[in-house]
Amino acid sequence: MKKEVKRFRELIKEKKLIDSSLGILQWDLETTTPRKGKELLSEMVGYLSMKSYDIVTSEEFLNLVKFLKANEKELDDIQRKEIDDMAEEIEKISKIPPHEYQEYSELTAKTQGVWEEAKAKNDFSMFKENLKKIFEFNIKFAEYQGKKDKKIYDIILDEYEKGMDTEKLDEFFSALRGEIVPLLKKIMEKNKNSKISCINRTVNIDEQKKFNRFLSEYLGFDFNRGVTAESEHPFTLNLDKNDVRLTTKYIENIPFSSIFSTIHETGHGIYEQQVGDDLQGTTLATGGSMGLHESQSRFYENMIGRSMSFWKGIYDKNIDVFPVLKEINIDKLYREINRVEPSFIRTEADELTYSLHIMIRYEIEKGIINGEIEIDDLPEVWNKKMEEYLGVVPETDRDGVLQDVHWACGLIGYFPSYALGNVYAAQLYNTMKKDMDVNSHLENGKLDRIKGWLRDRIHIYGKLRETAELIQEITGEELEPKYYIEYLKEKYSKIYDLD
Amino acid sequence: MKKEVKRFRELIKEKKLIDSSLGILQWDLETTTPRKGKELLSEMVGYLSMKSYDIVTSEEFLNLVKFLKANEKELDDIQRKEIDDMAEEIEKISKIPPHEYQEYSELTAKTQGVWEEAKAKNDFSMFKENLKKIFEFNIKFAEYQGKKDKKIYDIILDEYEKGMDTEKLDEFFSALRGEIVPLLKKIMEKNKNSKISCINRTVNIDEQKKFNRFLSEYLGFDFNRGVTAESEHPFTLNLDKNDVRLTTKYIENIPFSSIFSTIHETGHGIYEQQVGDDLQGTTLATGGSMGLHESQSRFYENMIGRSMSFWKGIYDKNIDVFPVLKEINIDKLYREINRVEPSFIRTEADELTYSLHIMIRYEIEKGIINGEIEIDDLPEVWNKKMEEYLGVVPETDRDGVLQDVHWACGLIGYFPSYALGNVYAAQLYNTMKKDMDVNSHLENGKLDRIKGWLRDRIHIYGKLRETAELIQEITGEELEPKYYIEYLKEKYSKIYDLD
Repeated sequence: MKKEVKRFRELIKEKKLIDSSLGILQWDLETTTPRKGKELLSEMVGYLSMKSYDIVTSEEFLNLVKFLKANEKELDDIQRKEIDDMAEEIEKISKIPPHEYQEYSELTAKTQGVWEEAKAKNDFSMFKENLKKIFEFNIKFAEYQGKKDKKIYDIILDEYEKGMDTEKLDEFFSALRGEIVPLLKKIMEKNKNSKISCINRTVNIDEQKKFNRFLSEYLGFDFNRGVTAESEHPFTLNLDKNDVRLTTKYIENIPFSSIFSTIHETGHGIYEQQVGDDLQGTTLATGGSMGLHESQSRFYENMIGRSMSFWKGIYDKNIDVFPVLKEINIDKLYREINRVEPSFIRTEADELTYSLHIMIRYEIEKGIINGEIEIDDLPEVWNKKMEEYLGVVPETDRDGVLQDVHWACGLIGYFPSYALGNVYAAQLYNTMKKDMDVNSHLENGKLDRIKGWLRDRIHIYGKLRETAELIQEITGEELEPKYYIEYLKEKYSKIYDLD
Repeated sequence: MKKEVKRFRELIKEKKLIDSSLGILQWDLETTTPRKGKELLSEMVGYLSMKSYDIVTSEEFLNLVKFLKANEKELDDIQRKEIDDMAEEIEKISKIPPHEYQEYSELTAKTQGVWEEAKAKNDFSMFKENLKKIFEFNIKFAEYQGKKDKKIYDIILDEYEKGMDTEKLDEFFSALRGEIVPLLKKIMEKNKNSKISCINRTVNIDEQKKFNRFLSEYLGFDFNRGVTAESEHPFTLNLDKNDVRLTTKYIENIPFSSIFSTIHETGHGIYEQQVGDDLQGTTLATGGSMGLHESQSRFYENMIGRSMSFWKGIYDKNIDVFPVLKEINIDKLYREINRVEPSFIRTEADELTYSLHIMIRYEIEKGIINGEIEIDDLPEVWNKKMEEYLGVVPETDRDGVLQDVHWACGLIGYFPSYALGNVYAAQLYNTMKKDMDVNSHLENGKLDRIKGWLRDRIHIYGKLRETAELIQEITGEELEPKYYIEYLKEKYSKIYDLD
């Protein structure tokens, strides 16, 4: 038994070294690699990915996991969870015929290029055949799992967020539709007569960089164990808690774009930096489910970063680091960073309309998988839903159904995690406010109190505990969307002075 | 035969993908990795290094090389050279008992840390026992080569620069000693009465960065196939001709430090970017010998970068990119970037005294290997030679014998390549001037003419041809130090108005 555990650890270590190298290559590709060097870097990624895959699909590794799973009573909690996760993962992969798995990998790799071109040319028809195949593969793979009592889309959703299903999501989105869509209409009515006042002005990139670094540090990101850089699409990479990396994108005349993007990624980064030391070196030493991870970034971005108290804390003591703030009255700033304005692009949406964008994607995914929506019809379906929920219709598919890369990568069932992140965030925020005076801490710059609260309840557990279990334990309830909807209604009714 | 060539290519390809990944990890370590992430990155480097080593020491690879070497008449020129080099390399390694090779690798890895601490504490005694062992290993490994007719130091020198030996180097350094030491004394006599006028002034890093980028591009570095970044010690990394990376170090109040460092690394970079397309994917697709590589960086740094014509070309048309130049008269600039000032640190030495620093290291290495110098005596020996050749004596060993990391890494016999670089550069420059009006091209910003000359004669050949053969073909002579000495005498006699 000891021998097997030791060997398992060795192979996991080897996999970690390869996967971390892969992480650095991806980081380099996004932040550094020169244009003509990308081909070689991509080849290197392909090669090392294969090496990592070879380890976990090797006869030796499969037998080890099988043996340890059969004897898991003798393992400690951490090892048992590792083995359970791994066995489940292997079980899933083993049900897919290898040649189909390979075919699908090649399809998604190729489709990203196809999507890019289709988006550039604003031509959905270039993309749709590949998209059909990707949905077909996802449906087929879900069927292979052999869970006859479950709906196909539920099997898919469960992969990204354990325990999530259409019943729960339908309930959430139906509440959202019922409450937020009318609220949005009221706000739009009010907005009609208000002049647009813009807080964005040209701020040179170096000044933006300094302020963004200040923000990450102020929120609690540790630069001894992390770095920041620029990339086209902001993301967070973690090798382990001692090497966590954030990127952002700077736009000279929209300084608040990089600011909220930085706060968002800092939320992901703090999560990773606070994973418990006892998990280091295990497969559990990283953040939990996708939805929970997103809850931390959204919590920092919205509940903290778009609150009055947070900016009061900065204005009072730290205004020197970002001189442009002196030109903006704090009330105006607060109102403008919370301006509601339906728009076409999900990633640029304000806090209120964001989840409506997710709802559209959710309904479409579900419709396709249930056979109620044809892929050929997607552009019209998309635009109709935009009209209905957001009251605006994109003029091009580039700003509509072609805007996101996710489906091209095979990420079907992934979008709902973004909405779940918001729901978890609001539910956690509701509990946090009972435990301490969050606003007072923010006004006094005591961000460590907030960071500490999250660490002790969520971050230290890494992947050791399931999200549903954690949420129940922390908040005393299951996933409960009402906190999110109440939070939005309260906040925006106040800002827009609605009754 | 075809089968074996194909398999050889596959293994070389695999090795290239691993080595390139290693390159990216090293790059990341020097430019990006957060402080506490360095341990993990170093482990990743160790792991992938082992994987690369495993390929070339595998039974299969050794047999392939043996077979192809035996049948090399059937190979084309490029493949034959690859196999020859590889067979030679394998032959060398195979003569060293594996456990000694491992022991030595561990020793040098450890000694770098020891050296760092010894340097920080200015304590040579901490370092000397490891240094003794490193020299002993180098001597032993040279003896294993079984070349009884050759001196030990000659065997070692030959590893870094094929065909190089103490006879040639003695001749060169003796000429240098005879001509440059007296010239330096005359200059110092003149300098006594001259006021120090300083061209360095505080220039913010962003402005320096812009100018450095301009310089690299102006010299001909292709940013579609390369990038630049900052690191503590400037270096050039090449994955292949499509991904070449340069670093520099910026010092706010010494802008000319990053400028000459950038020009130097750009010289290395242009070499790599111009390697022939027919060599891509082979082991020959990189610059030739260490000395030849250094000749290209020194040529750009000194013959080009420290010439009046180069700066005239910039002043006339491009002064806007670096406004600080407007404050400096070009004659003063020329004089100051060529100021001779004996100093303690090799890497900061001016063009004239640089090779004297190398001479000291050469004489010491030779003395230790021949049993004429004891390692215990190194600090005194060092200082005595500094006094004799440069007329200055460092006050601490940190600024003396402990300044360079090379010996701690096991790089015995490496220093002379730096001096050889200067000699090759001057010899090539002498020929280039016969082929075209270099100064006129510089004044007119036609840097592509210079780059093209170097490409056609040197760069496109990568590692395909031996340095000695190339130098003979291009200049019509063997390595001939007189051009370097004449170049220095002529240039500095003029600047310092000596007869």
